[in-house]
Amino acid sequence: MKIVDILNFRVPLSGQISNAVVNFSEHDVSLVAVVSDLRRNGRPLVGWAFNSIGRFAQQGIIEQRIRPRILAATEKSLLDCEGKGFDPSAVRACAMQNEKPGGHGDRASAVAAVELAIWDLNAKIREVPAWVLIAEHFGCIEAGCIEAGRTETVRTGAGRTEATRAASVYAAGGYYYPPGVGKTLSEELKSYQAMGFDRFKIKVGGAQLREDLARIDAAMKIAGDGKNLLVDANGRFDLPGALAFAKEIAPYSLGWFEEAGDPLDYALNRSLAEHYAGPIATGENLFSFEDVRNLLRYGGQRAGRDIFQMDAGLSYGLTDYARMIALMEQHGFDRRQAWPHGGHLINLHIVVGLGLGGCEVYPCVFQPFGGYSDACRIANGQVTPSQAPGFGLEEKSSLKPWLEKV
Amino acid sequence: MKIVDILNFRVPLSGQISNAVVNFSEHDVSLVAVVSDLRRNGRPLVGWAFNSIGRFAQQGIIEQRIRPRILAATEKSLLDCEGKGFDPSAVRACAMQNEKPGGHGDRASAVAAVELAIWDLNAKIREVPAWVLIAEHFGCIEAGCIEAGRTETVRTGAGRTEATRAASVYAAGGYYYPPGVGKTLSEELKSYQAMGFDRFKIKVGGAQLREDLARIDAAMKIAGDGKNLLVDANGRFDLPGALAFAKEIAPYSLGWFEEAGDPLDYALNRSLAEHYAGPIATGENLFSFEDVRNLLRYGGQRAGRDIFQMDAGLSYGLTDYARMIALMEQHGFDRRQAWPHGGHLINLHIVVGLGLGGCEVYPCVFQPFGGYSDACRIANGQVTPSQAPGFGLEEKSSLKPWLEKV
Repeated sequence: MKIVDILNFRVPLSGQISNAVVNFSEHDVSLVAVVSDLRRNGRPLVGWAFNSIGRFAQQGIIEQRIRPRILAATEKSLLDCEGKGFDPSAVRACAMQNEKPGGHGDRASAVAAVELAIWDLNAKIREVPAWVLIAEHFGCIEAGCIEAGRTETVRTGAGRTEATRAASVYAAGGYYYPPGVGKTLSEELKSYQAMGFDRFKIKVGGAQLREDLARIDAAMKIAGDGKNLLVDANGRFDLPGALAFAKEIAPYSLGWFEEAGDPLDYALNRSLAEHYAGPIATGENLFSFEDVRNLLRYGGQRAGRDIFQMDAGLSYGLTDYARMIALMEQHGFDRRQAWPHGGHLINLHIVVGLGLGGCEVYPCVFQPFGGYSDACRIANGQVTPSQAPGFGLEEKSSLKPWLEKV
Repeated sequence: MKIVDILNFRVPLSGQISNAVVNFSEHDVSLVAVVSDLRRNGRPLVGWAFNSIGRFAQQGIIEQRIRPRILAATEKSLLDCEGKGFDPSAVRACAMQNEKPGGHGDRASAVAAVELAIWDLNAKIREVPAWVLIAEHFGCIEAGCIEAGRTETVRTGAGRTEATRAASVYAAGGYYYPPGVGKTLSEELKSYQAMGFDRFKIKVGGAQLREDLARIDAAMKIAGDGKNLLVDANGRFDLPGALAFAKEIAPYSLGWFEEAGDPLDYALNRSLAEHYAGPIATGENLFSFEDVRNLLRYGGQRAGRDIFQMDAGLSYGLTDYARMIALMEQHGFDRRQAWPHGGHLINLHIVVGLGLGGCEVYPCVFQPFGGYSDACRIANGQVTPSQAPGFGLEEKSSLKPWLEKV
């Protein structure tokens, strides 16, 4: 059993949207196929994944550094101890051969795409949804991280699994559209409501304060309660700006205030936590265990209140992401404070498998990757993965043309 | 006056050397040519630079993200206010269009190569060595950062400059060679001594303690005094390992103990500074202003004693590097505590231009980039840049075949 090739496709994101700091129209994503020598229905069994959303494709790093290292590895070195699947941590280590410590940026998402494709491949070998494999691998069912009450059925072991574990989900959107697009923020959120969402996230910090507050007022009419509205500044503010904005939004009692300042400015985060009573959220732009450790040491995040948004697809994959969650718990936080960045199928399975707080989803933007497949059920602010093996990317119609290339 | 193209070449590093964590045999470097529409001697005037040493070439990021942004920019937006040269900070900002905050890794070195090539190009337009342009741009001559006593001649303004400012330099090497290469550490250091060096750096942490101490003993015989011997663990140790090693080397009173632990483990650095009296050095694997700010806030570095090794070629270029130096000074450090990583011509000009502590050089390894050109004088532990315009890469024979490609 071996990996015979690693293919990567540079897939452009559709849409002309902006947050407070970037326009996404030139963003792209690496869709990765790890091709095994196993076969299903006469075709090679392939693990698929991608490096989340919001950064860039990593063709150079994957083709020039990662692929040659993995294809040069001995067959056995990449297998798990029982030889029944591939070892994601061994693949991760192989991908990082002769890479120096520090500098966790583009490399972290390139490695992540490959490591996550291994999880998809392993789940397909086992013929289970990825979340089942993830829950078993990290001992989450035994440890009670997955609450029995929220899991309708989990039957594993007999080669088939029926599971309808649901996760909390909110609809992320509320971007700044260019003039002339003609859609209003209210229309956008109402369309999410019609899809079954009851919690929403909108962008702030990209306009004048008065306009942002008007956007919040408009969104509150649909969200109903402040706890169902989240705002995201994408790192736009310095400390005085963050504190001033926090003061303005305090009366709304919002669900959370996300990425007020630079993701590495832990002192800013700490000051904000000291001055703003509501939950704050950060972490989506921390791409390593070491960076998250610094957030935990210096960022002043509050147990039981603040939110951690690290994204496996941007930070070396699930092996490292699970280490981050364990470290959070060692620092006295609850894993339900983790709501990963990146609203897509891969993180849905990670949230369900690890029993995290919940996930975001981009129902309309960031196609072909954003949102779930038609086979996932969304109702009452909950989403339920389908029974497809792996992450179920094959069920997402927008991705189909790409997946058919292998 | 405009940039007509940005070319990049993926240049392999020669050699089979290792430090405590990586083998460099598969490392490569991006050599970048910023081609202007100006002409000299009937040929296009080109700015050359590269993304330092020790990480990897960044073909994907340069070709897919940076080059299209810069070539799409309006001509005027990239020029300095007087229109006599290009504005490195504007080129840096253009290269970073629609890039999110955080994640300072491969991108930082891709941007750096392009930004540094702008400095080379500007110096060639002015027909001065790069260090003169750098010193003028950052006001270092007026501010007295460049000590008069160490600058033999600085005459600028009349279109020509004669300058023989020297910088302190040490020879870096002392790697772990694979068995059978046949060279000993003593022979290596003696060869550096014969070249005019009197201070040396060797690798530690990649072997058993006893072997490392034997290496230090051997090196001490050539260095003579502990202050002339530096040791580099390349981030190999955890905290107990770092403290144990520090205890063993304390009696040698070494020049410095470099990168004991992970570059992002500021708490480890702080503990080491509390327990080890000798100078400690770190920072070569911090690739942004924000990361350096965290080192300054949390790392426990000691004013007047410890060493900062950030490298412009790995961290968005000289624009950002100069901001780091200014921040160091705001935190009470002296710029002579800065000794950039990366022993090559570009950092020699930066050290001389900004009046920093000094530079390392790899006289024999990391070719074709390591070391200086024959036109640079090395004597008594000092190196003097040549009179060539720009960084003088054209005078380095190992680079010539590459530079002739444009």
